[in-house]
Amino acid sequence: MAIRLSARDSDFEARFAALLAQKREVSEDVDQAVASILADVRARGDAAVIEYSKRFDRIDLDAVGMKVSAGEIAAARAQCDAETLGALALARDRIEAHHSRQLPTDESYVDPIGVELGHRWTPLDSVGLYVPGGTAAYPSSVLMNAVPAKVAGVQRLAMVVPAPDGRLAPLVLAAAELAGVDEIFRIGGAQAVGALAYGTETIAPVAKIVGPGNAYVAAAKRRVFGTVGIDMIAGPSEVLIVADGTANPDWIAADLLAQAEHDASAQSILITDDDELASAVEAAVERQLGVLPRKDIAGASWRDHGAVIVVRAIADAAPLADRIAAEHLEIIAEDGDALSKAIRHAGAIFLGGHTPEAIGDYVGGSNHVLPTARTARFASGLGVLDFLKRTSILRCGPEQLRAIGPAAIALGEAEGLQAHARSVAIRMNPGG
Amino acid sequence: MAIRLSARDSDFEARFAALLAQKREVSEDVDQAVASILADVRARGDAAVIEYSKRFDRIDLDAVGMKVSAGEIAAARAQCDAETLGALALARDRIEAHHSRQLPTDESYVDPIGVELGHRWTPLDSVGLYVPGGTAAYPSSVLMNAVPAKVAGVQRLAMVVPAPDGRLAPLVLAAAELAGVDEIFRIGGAQAVGALAYGTETIAPVAKIVGPGNAYVAAAKRRVFGTVGIDMIAGPSEVLIVADGTANPDWIAADLLAQAEHDASAQSILITDDDELASAVEAAVERQLGVLPRKDIAGASWRDHGAVIVVRAIADAAPLADRIAAEHLEIIAEDGDALSKAIRHAGAIFLGGHTPEAIGDYVGGSNHVLPTARTARFASGLGVLDFLKRTSILRCGPEQLRAIGPAAIALGEAEGLQAHARSVAIRMNPGG
Repeated sequence: MAIRLSARDSDFEARFAALLAQKREVSEDVDQAVASILADVRARGDAAVIEYSKRFDRIDLDAVGMKVSAGEIAAARAQCDAETLGALALARDRIEAHHSRQLPTDESYVDPIGVELGHRWTPLDSVGLYVPGGTAAYPSSVLMNAVPAKVAGVQRLAMVVPAPDGRLAPLVLAAAELAGVDEIFRIGGAQAVGALAYGTETIAPVAKIVGPGNAYVAAAKRRVFGTVGIDMIAGPSEVLIVADGTANPDWIAADLLAQAEHDASAQSILITDDDELASAVEAAVERQLGVLPRKDIAGASWRDHGAVIVVRAIADAAPLADRIAAEHLEIIAEDGDALSKAIRHAGAIFLGGHTPEAIGDYVGGSNHVLPTARTARFASGLGVLDFLKRTSILRCGPEQLRAIGPAAIALGEAEGLQAHARSVAIRMNPGG
Repeated sequence: MAIRLSARDSDFEARFAALLAQKREVSEDVDQAVASILADVRARGDAAVIEYSKRFDRIDLDAVGMKVSAGEIAAARAQCDAETLGALALARDRIEAHHSRQLPTDESYVDPIGVELGHRWTPLDSVGLYVPGGTAAYPSSVLMNAVPAKVAGVQRLAMVVPAPDGRLAPLVLAAAELAGVDEIFRIGGAQAVGALAYGTETIAPVAKIVGPGNAYVAAAKRRVFGTVGIDMIAGPSEVLIVADGTANPDWIAADLLAQAEHDASAQSILITDDDELASAVEAAVERQLGVLPRKDIAGASWRDHGAVIVVRAIADAAPLADRIAAEHLEIIAEDGDALSKAIRHAGAIFLGGHTPEAIGDYVGGSNHVLPTARTARFASGLGVLDFLKRTSILRCGPEQLRAIGPAAIALGEAEGLQAHARSVAIRMNPGG
């Protein structure tokens, strides 16, 4: 049973603050181990990657090869059932259509004094996509990371996925093929991050690494940041549902549990102004838990991190939602649009009773890689912009230099950078 | 004297690769010291910040206060000369005008099957701006970091700047006032980064920290990344000039030296197809060095990291420029536009002989916070988007759920996430 908080209680603020401060992740101290793996991969390339894969994944890459062959991919696809492949293709198409609208436009304009300013967007040359192995190998995540990169125009998309005991999930390979992934390597962990960042004999280095991973992968990404770009470091997933008395408690319970089944550190929170709805949802969660294959995980998440918060008026949910800054925010209320507008911090908003978050996970078209752990206060979900970079462009002629050059000279001198000042002055006074 | 490379030489590729691989920064291992400072600030707040400021900056914050008062700012402004203040104001206005054009628009559309998709941009609530103290206290950097944040709509902009021996640069305070900075604290180092990230009794925590700093600041930013957002971690500055025989060698030499005077790790490179220009620039650099107040610094940078590269045809400069991926790229050539289009990786491009990079540093209007150390392969200069985040919005009705729900159910089941599948199914089959 999740905790119940009521805004009517005198200790509400303290308990809400405690909920926010709750640590859901045990931070493993793997930094030293990761640093030495990275240094080793940088120094010894393939040989180091092969050694670590033998040790951690019990796989002999000398025997099977690091790269997954076209034949293996075709064989994997043949193993998948047609309905799932069709669903993946629908998801791919919808993600592609939505993300295509995110392509930014270049700009070039001439300002009132004749200075030409602008910027140009170019895709990254190459991107590495980390895909976890084992039970957390989700084909939908492959699509969500790979499709925006391809929409952006990334020419080379190299995927790494660990193959513990040699096993790879067929659907993950099928999704990679569907998404247009260019290269797949059966490696994982910090050694895979190192291989992508520094390059090895087999793997050319990439410009950026995206995708989720365990504590080793996260620590490795943090360390190679700067050598390559990285995306956000993802924490456990979470949902906040804001609902009034018009909402269906069974549907809300199902959505809370969909979040909770991810892992025991996931978090599901309901905020409502309706005591009856709160109780009905709590009861429905207990009822529905019983039928779930992952009831142990979902039950632990709900018990340890779940919360039902009752506020006086539904509008009071907005400031609380902003403090939670949830990865996923469902709003199911009569005036849902007004509530949505009043909330500033959320990774993604799902509006109305017929938009369960799981739709966004798979086939809505928007991205499911979203900022977790309150980072929606400053970060956005993954999108096409993450695979592009902007080059600014500036052009002055002699007249413009005469107009703004003196100010540049004054600032250069004020900062003690005479060579800066001089590089402008020399053009204004050809004798200088 | 900088090195000279010629594409005609048989060892060109090896020497060019060595130039790219050259380490310009001594990476100090300050990570453990920084970790303990951060933990201490997190645990003890103001008391820890005051202690470290006493130790590192020789300042008694108990006596003078952490926050810089309005009176101090006014007094600082009064100390600045009118010409420099005027130049700062011009810079501020031009930066503001240019960055205002970067404000993105929200989107909302209905797709062919009736799903409503879109996104909304919101500014970060609060941003911390780190400004180095001492000789590297540049008022122009204050503008370049603060103005885009204010254009984005950030309500609270908190600046930290160390005051070694109690001293603050008046122009830095004046620039902060001009840019609309809301709070200024006279603290620096890892302790200032910790105070901004975790908050103290005096300083409310921020959502993101931007701005350059020394090795301690960089390590601290890397460590608090995730708790708050951070910008790129800046390395030594660099310029690449691509010029043909039509360029003025004295102007090029002045620009190479403007870069070199930043610090001894800065890098200035010329690529040209003209042997005579190469020699004339080399001679002009030696000549101009003599008159520079910072000739020791600029001379060391040019000697240790400078390079003049002669290619067969100016078009051959493009692939080399892409490998260098320079922070600043000047193109001074007859067909400069074509060259500019052919180059994919650069932080900023300065076109034509009358656009010295120093114009962009101060008054061009575009941002001078740009990706260094080859990170232009994956990163962009600072802009308004760095102070906004995007929330995606999705809405389905019953019809849309019927259309795409089955695919979501199929994928949820394929991923072993039955509660995901169930949260969709329960709405399609109200009996379930």
